[in-house]
Amino acid sequence: MELINNLQWRYAVKKYTGEMVSEDKIDQIIQAVNLTASSCGIQPYRLILVKNPEIRQKLAAGSFNTQIQDSSHLLVFAAFNKITSEYIAEYVAMMEEQRNLETGALNDYKDLLISHFSTQTPEQNAIWSGKQAYIGLGTALIAAAELKVDATPMEGFDPAVFNDALGLTEKNLHASVIISLGYRDTANDYLATMPKVRLPIDEFSTKLY
Amino acid sequence: MELINNLQWRYAVKKYTGEMVSEDKIDQIIQAVNLTASSCGIQPYRLILVKNPEIRQKLAAGSFNTQIQDSSHLLVFAAFNKITSEYIAEYVAMMEEQRNLETGALNDYKDLLISHFSTQTPEQNAIWSGKQAYIGLGTALIAAAELKVDATPMEGFDPAVFNDALGLTEKNLHASVIISLGYRDTANDYLATMPKVRLPIDEFSTKLY
Repeated sequence: MELINNLQWRYAVKKYTGEMVSEDKIDQIIQAVNLTASSCGIQPYRLILVKNPEIRQKLAAGSFNTQIQDSSHLLVFAAFNKITSEYIAEYVAMMEEQRNLETGALNDYKDLLISHFSTQTPEQNAIWSGKQAYIGLGTALIAAAELKVDATPMEGFDPAVFNDALGLTEKNLHASVIISLGYRDTANDYLATMPKVRLPIDEFSTKLY
Repeated sequence: MELINNLQWRYAVKKYTGEMVSEDKIDQIIQAVNLTASSCGIQPYRLILVKNPEIRQKLAAGSFNTQIQDSSHLLVFAAFNKITSEYIAEYVAMMEEQRNLETGALNDYKDLLISHFSTQTPEQNAIWSGKQAYIGLGTALIAAAELKVDATPMEGFDPAVFNDALGLTEKNLHASVIISLGYRDTANDYLATMPKVRLPIDEFSTKLY
């Protein structure tokens, strides 16, 4: 299966060559993340692509991950802090439009979502949004691998620095997880030639048949 | 791109035909999830595949999602409750073995992980593990789509029922998210022919170049 080959090929790159990833490939990666699944289908996170060196220097502060600066592009998965009734109403209106339904056709669905999310605390909503962003993260890694673009998923960054430098808090967002993109420097990356480590299948999974 | 075609093809199936998915395909989906990325590379979740009807009947209690029973297979993503020093030590020992390194070669990495996870509360560790499981969820949906197997990702289930029926708590696990697998019943699934709803790319993503 193509996916298995691509997953075997990828690894978390430690050192990049400096070669830039083409905008066409970046756009395909964004498109794949936009198309991936999210719970209730409401896409409660946004993607910010950073190439600007000054911004990246700020973002790298307080992180041991040099890939934040030393890569072609940085993808920031910014998850919602709150799931507001306004957002749900707007999103469901867009659903009706894209599905050529009458206005109000999905009112029951809208009410169900509003009622569900209003019973959750802001912390629960933020955690939930963050989980959806991780579906996007996995999808971006797979998209990059199919395009033979290298990537490094990272949790090792300072969210407060990111939220501040990217003005996320006032947009109801927080930096959830990030990925750098570029091309592996095989000669200078100790991890490039290491075998991939994974659990034996029987330890990872159990069948109850 | 193949991935984009597969993501366009998939949707959250509401009604299955009853046709079974072959074990060969199930095994490829498991293999893909086992190969996908996880933070620190330590795979803090397990996959449980349920086909047994009696167990599925128990699991479906308290859920409005009939796909828990009415599908070919059910995949349960069971995330770790605690990240113990013992688990980290065992996993890092496996890393050394699979990479043909001397015993103790990754001691620094092991100590770093143990020190990091011991500063987190059990709740933080459980949330973190759950997020990693969502990378696996996204990967399983993509794997299924490549194999033209249909799927429904679901958060709408009772975790307490799952933890109890599958004996997860005593294994340091909790049900994080689930997927049913099977084949879409196009004639009887209202969602089968609906256009996919997604944000305009410019609303979903921002470029800081």
